[in-house]
Amino acid sequence: MLHGPNLNLLGHREPEVYGRDTLEAIDRTLREEAGTLDVELETFQANGEGALVDYVQEAASRVDGFLVNAAALTHTSVALLDALVGVGRPYVEVHLSNIHARESFRRESLLAPRAAGVVVGFGADSYLLGLRGLARQLAARAGN
Amino acid sequence: MLHGPNLNLLGHREPEVYGRDTLEAIDRTLREEAGTLDVELETFQANGEGALVDYVQEAASRVDGFLVNAAALTHTSVALLDALVGVGRPYVEVHLSNIHARESFRRESLLAPRAAGVVVGFGADSYLLGLRGLARQLAARAGN
Amino acid sequence: MLHGPNLNLLGHREPEVYGRDTLEAIDRTLREEAGTLDVELETFQANGEGALVDYVQEAASRVDGFLVNAAALTHTSVALLDALVGVGRPYVEVHLSNIHARESFRRESLLAPRAAGVVVGFGADSYLLGLRGLARQLAARAGN
Amino acid sequence: MLHGPNLNLLGHREPEVYGRDTLEAIDRTLREEAGTLDVELETFQANGEGALVDYVQEAASRVDGFLVNAAALTHTSVALLDALVGVGRPYVEVHLSNIHARESFRRESLLAPRAAGVVVGFGADSYLLGLRGLARQLAARAGN
Amino acid sequence: MLHGPNLNLLGHREPEVYGRDTLEAIDRTLREEAGTLDVELETFQANGEGALVDYVQEAASRVDGFLVNAAALTHTSVALLDALVGVGRPYVEVHLSNIHARESFRRESLLAPRAAGVVVGFGADSYLLGLRGLARQLAARAGN
Amino acid sequence: MLHGPNLNLLGHREPEVYGRDTLEAIDRTLREEAGTLDVELETFQANGEGALVDYVQEAASRVDGFLVNAAALTHTSVALLDALVGVGRPYVEVHLSNIHARESFRRESLLAPRAAGVVVGFGADSYLLGLRGLARQLAARAGN
Amino acid sequence: MLHGPNLNLLGHREPEVYGRDTLEAIDRTLREEAGTLDVELETFQANGEGALVDYVQEAASRVDGFLVNAAALTHTSVALLDALVGVGRPYVEVHLSNIHARESFRRESLLAPRAAGVVVGFGADSYLLGLRGLARQLAARAGN
Amino acid sequence: MLHGPNLNLLGHREPEVYGRDTLEAIDRTLREEAGTLDVELETFQANGEGALVDYVQEAASRVDGFLVNAAALTHTSVALLDALVGVGRPYVEVHLSNIHARESFRRESLLAPRAAGVVVGFGADSYLLGLRGLARQLAARAGN
Amino acid sequence: MLHGPNLNLLGHREPEVYGRDTLEAIDRTLREEAGTLDVELETFQANGEGALVDYVQEAASRVDGFLVNAAALTHTSVALLDALVGVGRPYVEVHLSNIHARESFRRESLLAPRAAGVVVGFGADSYLLGLRGLARQLAARAGN
Amino acid sequence: MLHGPNLNLLGHREPEVYGRDTLEAIDRTLREEAGTLDVELETFQANGEGALVDYVQEAASRVDGFLVNAAALTHTSVALLDALVGVGRPYVEVHLSNIHARESFRRESLLAPRAAGVVVGFGADSYLLGLRGLARQLAARAGN
Amino acid sequence: MLHGPNLNLLGHREPEVYGRDTLEAIDRTLREEAGTLDVELETFQANGEGALVDYVQEAASRVDGFLVNAAALTHTSVALLDALVGVGRPYVEVHLSNIHARESFRRESLLAPRAAGVVVGFGADSYLLGLRGLARQLAARAGN
Amino acid sequence: MLHGPNLNLLGHREPEVYGRDTLEAIDRTLREEAGTLDVELETFQANGEGALVDYVQEAASRVDGFLVNAAALTHTSVALLDALVGVGRPYVEVHLSNIHARESFRRESLLAPRAAGVVVGFGADSYLLGLRGLARQLAARAGN
Repeated sequence: MLHGPNLNLLGHREPEVYGRDTLEAIDRTLREEAGTLDVELETFQANGEGALVDYVQEAASRVDGFLVNAAALTHTSVALLDALVGVGRPYVEVHLSNIHARESFRRESLLAPRAAGVVVGFGADSYLLGLRGLARQLAARAGN
Repeated sequence: MLHGPNLNLLGHREPEVYGRDTLEAIDRTLREEAGTLDVELETFQANGEGALVDYVQEAASRVDGFLVNAAALTHTSVALLDALVGVGRPYVEVHLSNIHARESFRRESLLAPRAAGVVVGFGADSYLLGLRGLARQLAARAGN
Repeated sequence: MLHGPNLNLLGHREPEVYGRDTLEAIDRTLREEAGTLDVELETFQANGEGALVDYVQEAASRVDGFLVNAAALTHTSVALLDALVGVGRPYVEVHLSNIHARESFRRESLLAPRAAGVVVGFGADSYLLGLRGLARQLAARAGN
Repeated sequence: MLHGPNLNLLGHREPEVYGRDTLEAIDRTLREEAGTLDVELETFQANGEGALVDYVQEAASRVDGFLVNAAALTHTSVALLDALVGVGRPYVEVHLSNIHARESFRRESLLAPRAAGVVVGFGADSYLLGLRGLARQLAARAGN
Repeated sequence: MLHGPNLNLLGHREPEVYGRDTLEAIDRTLREEAGTLDVELETFQANGEGALVDYVQEAASRVDGFLVNAAALTHTSVALLDALVGVGRPYVEVHLSNIHARESFRRESLLAPRAAGVVVGFGADSYLLGLRGLARQLAARAGN
Repeated sequence: MLHGPNLNLLGHREPEVYGRDTLEAIDRTLREEAGTLDVELETFQANGEGALVDYVQEAASRVDGFLVNAAALTHTSVALLDALVGVGRPYVEVHLSNIHARESFRRESLLAPRAAGVVVGFGADSYLLGLRGLARQLAARAGN
Repeated sequence: MLHGPNLNLLGHREPEVYGRDTLEAIDRTLREEAGTLDVELETFQANGEGALVDYVQEAASRVDGFLVNAAALTHTSVALLDALVGVGRPYVEVHLSNIHARESFRRESLLAPRAAGVVVGFGADSYLLGLRGLARQLAARAGN
Repeated sequence: MLHGPNLNLLGHREPEVYGRDTLEAIDRTLREEAGTLDVELETFQANGEGALVDYVQEAASRVDGFLVNAAALTHTSVALLDALVGVGRPYVEVHLSNIHARESFRRESLLAPRAAGVVVGFGADSYLLGLRGLARQLAARAGN
Repeated sequence: MLHGPNLNLLGHREPEVYGRDTLEAIDRTLREEAGTLDVELETFQANGEGALVDYVQEAASRVDGFLVNAAALTHTSVALLDALVGVGRPYVEVHLSNIHARESFRRESLLAPRAAGVVVGFGADSYLLGLRGLARQLAARAGN
Repeated sequence: MLHGPNLNLLGHREPEVYGRDTLEAIDRTLREEAGTLDVELETFQANGEGALVDYVQEAASRVDGFLVNAAALTHTSVALLDALVGVGRPYVEVHLSNIHARESFRRESLLAPRAAGVVVGFGADSYLLGLRGLARQLAARAGN
Repeated sequence: MLHGPNLNLLGHREPEVYGRDTLEAIDRTLREEAGTLDVELETFQANGEGALVDYVQEAASRVDGFLVNAAALTHTSVALLDALVGVGRPYVEVHLSNIHARESFRRESLLAPRAAGVVVGFGADSYLLGLRGLARQLAARAGN
Repeated sequence: MLHGPNLNLLGHREPEVYGRDTLEAIDRTLREEAGTLDVELETFQANGEGALVDYVQEAASRVDGFLVNAAALTHTSVALLDALVGVGRPYVEVHLSNIHARESFRRESLLAPRAAGVVVGFGADSYLLGLRGLARQLAARAGN
């Protein structure tokens, strides 16, 4: 699980937009869901594009896929797109809020066209649904 | 569950884009998932904008929310948007394929800005995830 | 009088945008106004573009002009434009709300450039003013 | 009643576009209509943006609303918009010709998004319909 | 042969644009041409997008290709495009008038990029030429 | 028959786009078709805009119309448009490939808005259909 | 001769763009040229759009045509365009500098599409050439 | 100090956008600040573009620089830009509200690219800060 | 004097747009005017961009400036622009018709931004005025 | 005080654009001004978006507001915008140069629409004016 | 080596943009470099698009690749693109100046998307580098 | 030599786009080429914009120029542009793949307009050619 910039502020920052759950709470619920789905999960948060790209490159050898909420970088980071596509692992893009209902520059995602799936607008549930969707895709691929 | 134009062709039409499941198979799986989630589900498919708007208006009094794959009408139907918003029920938008990876006119959804959530690109799983997300939203609202 | 999609929801749907009068109430007031102006009036509502086009073609032989609130189809239906222009009767376009104050895709009307007049933003009064304007135009033409 | 630039040429200037009535004739008919509706009316015409803004500011204390045909300034004057909105009186925008059927730069009105209503294309009748619509809005507000 | 909205008005509607032949006359000539080319032809006209999509789906099993004049829907119907592509039959797009010489919104065809050929501007002859072109394409494919 | 730049490469150049017929073969078939239609035909090919304009001017006095595949110049040559319109002969535009299915700069034709008809996408048959359409138009004009 | 805003600064304001001649010097030369051409000339300068429109309306009855350098208003004044077209006199547009070589907002002239001719970039000579061109046009019309 | 159209309404007009201070109050504070900074200040307000341009030209000979809040004309007046640049005095642009947070047509300032500095969004303090900035620039230039 | 493509058709081609004078007549009048102005003039017409560029390069050593009506190439030829700028001689651009009143692609001139002056819309007089303007510029330069 | 990328080069980098003061000199002057205004000030410079976001988050708990010159990130960093808005402290945006007078991509600021004020173009004085403006805003808020 | 229009002016034309080397000098250096790289080289320059297309077609049978500086035609010639792609030889695009630093219409190259490589901005060295790059590509292909 | 984000994946990441050479192999070849050219070379790779900007600032004092493949940051990093321009050293931009043949957002380079030269599309040879071009530019400058 990859968390983009400012997501460590969750629960504190603009709760009317992003909800009241902290990142820790979301990660905990996510790990429980992972347990239910019988998959392992590690989480990483950073505010810098470089650190996120470093992580994607380094983690690629030990994970089967990425669950990504790139936050602000969704709309500006070609480097993160290149990293995710470059390491050859499927990734699912998730967002807490409905990005289609916000400022116009938040409607365009650089990551979406290459994503294995996209889930937006369900609050913290977006993560759970995205994880479930990714797990099923990986299982389907493994099953072939 | 609202299926837009040409979705009755599923399984026959361009399987490399839309997958091999027929609409009947998807509806069956969806009803099973609904059983698991303890919600009731009815499904409707039509090729005409008018028929879909009629259905939304008529069904609104007996459902708590809509799961919508408007297919081609996603990109062209203001009338369907008005119907869904007008009847005052939350709706979740789903798509089988990743619309962000296709022709540019398929990247813009008229329905998305007012949706309670959006799930795209997981094939038939998009429906299951969308249903789950909608059910959780309705439960959360009911719980308040 | 031609009512476009979702106008049968009037009075129920988003009253803060469209007002509290039902379509029946509006039609009743409109018929009274028609009586005052000494003109006859029939009304038709449908949610489908095809049904509205059918009606325009069929009604054209017995009416002198059309009063049209095409609602959502105002912004998307070239077919309705072609029907209204094709049958050779003047038409007046009306809207309850001020479409210029709403989403950008509601600011562009396909019907307006060929209309005999346009009235927007007066709530149910838009219909009465539009009818009066159309009646005067028809009388002026007849008087020539 | 506020008349924008060149409307004093009415009846002389391009009669095939703007009709054959002079401004005096229109004002006379308008005053008669005002009598019928039991409202008082004053009229003002100027060719300069500054003079029109001055008038709006000065007249605001003695009128309940404005009927405005800003002519060319419809498309260029942010200052007139600011004046009309700034004095806090509702205004109705009217045009003799159908501005949607003319050059593209005449299709965009800076005043329309904040107007209490818009009437276009009925020739001199646009004024009468606009006055009637404004009178009814003011009566409705007063009645609350 | 698929006729889109308002083509049943042919011969009555704006003859200076669309010519004086009625749809019946065109269909008759077309059937004669079909006889000459030794192909069978059925014709269908509807004003509604849904009805046209229904027809394409239903007819697909008994025809080898479609000759399509989608009229107004040419410019607005993603659903008709999806139906024609989805059923896997080649289609030829025809127009009576030269759509490139008309309003800008008539210059863009949603159907053209996937068509097996396009013929515009020859009046009723567009149908004959389009039929001939389609017949030759089908013969060439069959011959392989 | 006017052939634009690089059409002399036909049969050699990118056969998967333009087919395997050489220009000579196409011209031969076209002359046969001309014989069938009882019209005379001359053909000209050049790679330069100036040479094509020279030809149009010079040939205009001895031909009744032009069949034009301007190839690359379709999208860039105002001079060829001016020549064809200036000499006052109807012209039909044809293309081997479906230009609507290619790069966006090939979708815009400068010649199309003034053409007497357009045929695209049928391979070498586009020429035959275009010739037939032009012959019928000239016959119809002559018949008046 | 109509001079738009800030032209009274000529000779003082940015001489590297507008030259060193004062407006008085230009008017004097222009009157001499008028004498040579045997036409009468009056000149007017104002900084306000309203004053310029007033002048056009008032002067129209005593002049045969207008020579116009609208300066900044060239790019923003629909009212001046309406006045010049409305009074039914031909007008020639002139500019001292080459407006095509300056900021992009100076490249678009609202007045040019309806002008009887346009002369730009010759410095003060633009006025002389424009006057000569206008005089010849008026003479040619009078001669018919 | 140059105040554009409708700024004389300050304190009355939309106080939630423009604050509660009247123009007189602002001018008084500004004069006090000028005293502190040891500079002299005169103020001028007008609703007309022409009057503002007249003032700039006339005042230029007795002032060292301009402090300008052109209000609505910020976005539409090339003439005011030409006047300010033409007289060769530095000017500082100020706005009470944050124009970047308002309608898109208020985000573009024609004056800004040539301004010696811009201050926006601090309410009446924008004037004080702008004056201070201008005074320091003039002092620095004088010091050279 | 440089004449672009199709100008050799003058007098024959679309006289309602380009007037009834032939190119020979225009050249004759132009030479007379040249005599009056005491300058020498040679004329060249070609339909090909390459031939016009060749001529500009070759003539540059014996002329002081160019009078250019590039016709269709005005809007498409970067090569002609490069040639005219490259040889370092001033050039004046002229057009018979008012290009600002025609199709939008004729409103943009590639040559204008670097021209020493532009004259459009006076019919054959455009040439005479352009020649006069160019002669005066050359004289002024020589006089320095 | 937050300094964006490359501002540590100040005084060395392109002095004709950014002035000759080093960042140290500016910070020193700023601290003096802070002393005068009786506020405390800390300064931070980094070249990385991540480091700046980290700083905003970390500093938020001990400061009342931010003075920000985001330099290049002004135009590209949604993440910095999210951080500044997310921590709930007012911020003032400042720039040394007049960004409206530079390349077009420098005219759009992502930070401006949410800023408490913006000051540009005064060189190092922009910082002093911005600090003063921010201090007054904080004082005014505290005073309520 | 293919040289586009006006490159024969090199050394004479705008040396501050294009350098002081003549085309002959460049060709000589290039031939020396070719000798070093053990490849043969022929050069061709023309000002006309047609002549360049003719040359590409004719030379294709005796060369392995093209080194192309299409100059002005880089931005306008679809025909040259079609020729280079049509003959099936790799080509390298070179420019003397940095086209990205010039007018916006020089930033778009029609040839670049299909080129085997692009070298810009090194003056005459661009040719040497481009030749070297092309030679290595051809060698690598031959080596496979 | 400056390598942007994800270039450390070279040889592993999408070899069909970026080739099979690893970054180490490229650097080694590059150092050999540097030896041949008698220049010294250091290389640096980072995934973060901040780290790259830090490096440019720090290395500037010991290098004469930069060879830059900014990868994804080519299209998004104003900060890197500012750093390269700010330190006052010429830089050459290189890319392995032909960025003009890829997604539209990869066609725009922020760095190119200020670069001393650009080389794209030659695979690893782009580096060698760029180094050679830079070395020659530096030698030429030193030689002056």
